[in-house]
Amino acid sequence: MYAIAVRRGEGSPTLVEKPRPEPGPGEALVRTLRVGVDGTDHEVIAGSHGGCPEGEDHIVLGHEAVGVVEDPNGTGLSEGDVVVPTVRRRPNGSNGYFDRGEPDMAPAGRYHERGIDGAHGFMAEYFVSPAEHLVRCPAAIAELGFLVEPASITEKAIEHARASRSAFEWTPESAFVLGNGSLGLLTVAMLDDAFDRLYCLGRRDRPDPTIDIVEELDATYVDSRETPVDEVSAVHEPMDFVYEATGYARHAFETIEALAPNGVGALLGVPGDWEFEVDGGTLHREFVLHNKALVGSVNSGVRHFERAVESVAALPEWFTDALVTGVYGLDEFERAFDVDDDTTIKTAVELGSL
Amino acid sequence: MYAIAVRRGEGSPTLVEKPRPEPGPGEALVRTLRVGVDGTDHEVIAGSHGGCPEGEDHIVLGHEAVGVVEDPNGTGLSEGDVVVPTVRRRPNGSNGYFDRGEPDMAPAGRYHERGIDGAHGFMAEYFVSPAEHLVRCPAAIAELGFLVEPASITEKAIEHARASRSAFEWTPESAFVLGNGSLGLLTVAMLDDAFDRLYCLGRRDRPDPTIDIVEELDATYVDSRETPVDEVSAVHEPMDFVYEATGYARHAFETIEALAPNGVGALLGVPGDWEFEVDGGTLHREFVLHNKALVGSVNSGVRHFERAVESVAALPEWFTDALVTGVYGLDEFERAFDVDDDTTIKTAVELGSL
Repeated sequence: MYAIAVRRGEGSPTLVEKPRPEPGPGEALVRTLRVGVDGTDHEVIAGSHGGCPEGEDHIVLGHEAVGVVEDPNGTGLSEGDVVVPTVRRRPNGSNGYFDRGEPDMAPAGRYHERGIDGAHGFMAEYFVSPAEHLVRCPAAIAELGFLVEPASITEKAIEHARASRSAFEWTPESAFVLGNGSLGLLTVAMLDDAFDRLYCLGRRDRPDPTIDIVEELDATYVDSRETPVDEVSAVHEPMDFVYEATGYARHAFETIEALAPNGVGALLGVPGDWEFEVDGGTLHREFVLHNKALVGSVNSGVRHFERAVESVAALPEWFTDALVTGVYGLDEFERAFDVDDDTTIKTAVELGSL
Repeated sequence: MYAIAVRRGEGSPTLVEKPRPEPGPGEALVRTLRVGVDGTDHEVIAGSHGGCPEGEDHIVLGHEAVGVVEDPNGTGLSEGDVVVPTVRRRPNGSNGYFDRGEPDMAPAGRYHERGIDGAHGFMAEYFVSPAEHLVRCPAAIAELGFLVEPASITEKAIEHARASRSAFEWTPESAFVLGNGSLGLLTVAMLDDAFDRLYCLGRRDRPDPTIDIVEELDATYVDSRETPVDEVSAVHEPMDFVYEATGYARHAFETIEALAPNGVGALLGVPGDWEFEVDGGTLHREFVLHNKALVGSVNSGVRHFERAVESVAALPEWFTDALVTGVYGLDEFERAFDVDDDTTIKTAVELGSL
């Protein structure tokens, strides 16, 4: 079968031939339909994040996949089930995080991430996976199934943010999504029903397709060059919920000032080292006197994927049409990794069809 | 009756005579037993925090009180009930935070704080309070009732910290209390049953009574001059829970590095403005990749006082004997405000007895 991999040190994805995998006990064989591309893939390709499986000189890419069960292999799945795989896998034997269905809470060293770190990904014509890590998805949204993994990231962040506010009556009205990349836009669409007023931060000039999407979702576009995150409270309104998806470290701290009393910020970006000055006294005081919270959130588990399936199914068609700017077959897979263009939002590689 | 107040601009507490208050509808008349002194009192005295009730040139001090009901005045209380008053009161008419029993979640401007900001405190021979803001306390711990308010602050912080970790299975083992003042020591004692390993940060040389208390509680004393907060993880162990009670703004940020994966830091200090440099990239990344959280927490509500009554009742006698270093009558009340001495930990003014 064909797969798309990156060889150690090469810096660009390449088509490789590999034997079709055989499912082991408890594993199903899945024929891959589509696999999305995101910023993490680009970091893996660049060699700045993750790494090859032990003893191998390449890693098959892809962690945002949807496929169809080809061989249930005695698991509870059925041939023809459309499934989305979760990303983390047991590294060596088992550990408590996996045993209780919370691999997303495992610390570094206690997991592999398929397509990212220590395990091959899903960007291949077939993959095998333990059935416990496969989440069923209605066939009607099979073509959008590659959006379930990113949506699950947001489901987990929302779950943890809400949990942090569960000790009192929290009735949030305003939400501010930092970042107008594909995850930011997906999140604005997912938050649409839960918040009265939505804002989305970007740093692009009009006309721009991401700004069009923000506004079509009835959200307010906030240009960070005009209104920095720590001024949004004064310029627009204090935010009950902030969702940071920029990976820009200053935003993590400016979020504290953007929050309304009793608000919470979910942090999702993974920046590199960067020292800078903060008004730490003011931030500390704001945290305390207004009962604010920040929660970091990484990865996601089966229950977040299950919720994400529902969220993706509920997305308006115009939105997914606008969000997914390109789906490319194996013959032109390179185009899915091309990000030089401001008209590209979300791409996927198509490896098969229902 | 006598009361201890501070006149605007004077900078030191003084004994004043005031008429005994008359309870209004829904209010009980309480004869005061003891009132504790803490850092907030010193800020109010210095004029750096809070302010006098509207139209008055002085504020009666005291927000850590215990008293005995003298006149229930038709409320559900009984004459002779030992009670502890909560601190926040409706400023003008009502608001939702008070209506639902969460005045501690009210933002600035939506509350007065008795003895601190906009309302007279409890350091008087009698006070009146709506019965809904009086929490019953067993007569057996009446002499320690002034510890219930500070203990309630910790109960709320723990509640919010635990809530932030309620979306997954969190089984914390290690806790690190920043600060060996009276609130820090009280918190170490309160956490004793819930954590396997406790640490407490200070910056004092031995011999020192607070270090003795820390070690008597089987906690490890961490000298911040030898082991800064952001190195405690390497020197001792990563902490599942950090409780910040120093008001030193750098600690709010160093807490992120002190935390174990999936850990939470509760921030309680209220520092002034202070700009400094942080490795914001590393902190942001740590937040995200290890699912960490920070929650700010201020004030407390009736349910936290109720839990605090139980916590204070459970404190070992040797501990409260060591913690409370002085209880002074009205004839020598100034001594309760004297903090020049490293042997002073917690003081109170005694205004009456059972």
